[in-house]
Amino acid sequence: MRVNYPNPSLNQQKTKVLKSHGMLFENALNITNEYYRIHQMAHIYKKPTPVQVVKVDYPKRSKARIIEAYYRTPSTTDYNGVYKGRYLDYEAKETNNLNFAFKHIFPHQIKHLTDVAHHGGIAFLIIYYKRVNEIYIIDINQFNKLYLEGENGGQKSLSILKAKEIGILVKQGYTPPIDYLKAIDEYYFKGD
Amino acid sequence: MRVNYPNPSLNQQKTKVLKSHGMLFENALNITNEYYRIHQMAHIYKKPTPVQVVKVDYPKRSKARIIEAYYRTPSTTDYNGVYKGRYLDYEAKETNNLNFAFKHIFPHQIKHLTDVAHHGGIAFLIIYYKRVNEIYIIDINQFNKLYLEGENGGQKSLSILKAKEIGILVKQGYTPPIDYLKAIDEYYFKGD
Repeated sequence: MRVNYPNPSLNQQKTKVLKSHGMLFENALNITNEYYRIHQMAHIYKKPTPVQVVKVDYPKRSKARIIEAYYRTPSTTDYNGVYKGRYLDYEAKETNNLNFAFKHIFPHQIKHLTDVAHHGGIAFLIIYYKRVNEIYIIDINQFNKLYLEGENGGQKSLSILKAKEIGILVKQGYTPPIDYLKAIDEYYFKGD
Repeated sequence: MRVNYPNPSLNQQKTKVLKSHGMLFENALNITNEYYRIHQMAHIYKKPTPVQVVKVDYPKRSKARIIEAYYRTPSTTDYNGVYKGRYLDYEAKETNNLNFAFKHIFPHQIKHLTDVAHHGGIAFLIIYYKRVNEIYIIDINQFNKLYLEGENGGQKSLSILKAKEIGILVKQGYTPPIDYLKAIDEYYFKGD
């Protein structure tokens, strides 16, 4: 039997927006961050994709037109910003499998997140396991333990079971679609 | 009479690197941030310049080639990162005049910096007055007072004299060329 809750917020908790609406993970994160900015909850942005510009054409009376360029490997991560005074930095990943393979994240991005944590910032991966439609926040220090095990002959991936164990589940909703600040509060601001 | 100090660090303090070496301001900032990262003092990066990609060519056996794209207006600022756990965000500007005209910074960038300060981050402009070869850090709240005066009929620029009064002078050196964290300590971490 399907239950329709009279309270819309309860319905929201039951709704898996990404799956049911086919919304892209990155898109949903961008909308969430916009929501946070508008409501003055946090100030977090996606960084532009780095492009190596080779040739630019300057037609008369119109703006510069790039006619040869290539995508570059990002030197850092996708998202950063400020929340409750703290610096916050993360990389967003999605996988079709029940395991997130470590090869899908660049070693220099792991180093970047580790450095951020070292300087007192909040640094994590946010991983969307599409198959089960669940999103987890994995703190970089937690991730590094597994990563190191992987380097030393252990599993080179993060299974959904392990994510459940070491990560924080992010609930999906409508506004915002991925309300991950609640998970951040739970993990990084406990007792505040 | 020119004095050559036996202590190289004293010589460094006397040297105006940007002027004498013709180093670009942005370049000098990038080198400084790299120095900070290598020495684990702070983790601050320049964001990529945003590019709107229109057409991409995918030649066989080689990487995607962007064949039509345009520069976009940055939605935020040039630099951000983490220092002593705090979020830090700034826009770098230079001027050939003894006044920095407000029209050279986008209103949405001022709003961005104001929002960052509102969330407890460190937000400022770093302005290089080329003519006198001096660099000042201007806190966004200080800047906003003048900006508001400008909106209400006052001066629409920041003179070098005013910068001396409300800003913090950043000393130039060799390694790093623009050691602005000292100025940050002075203004934002006084008494820590």
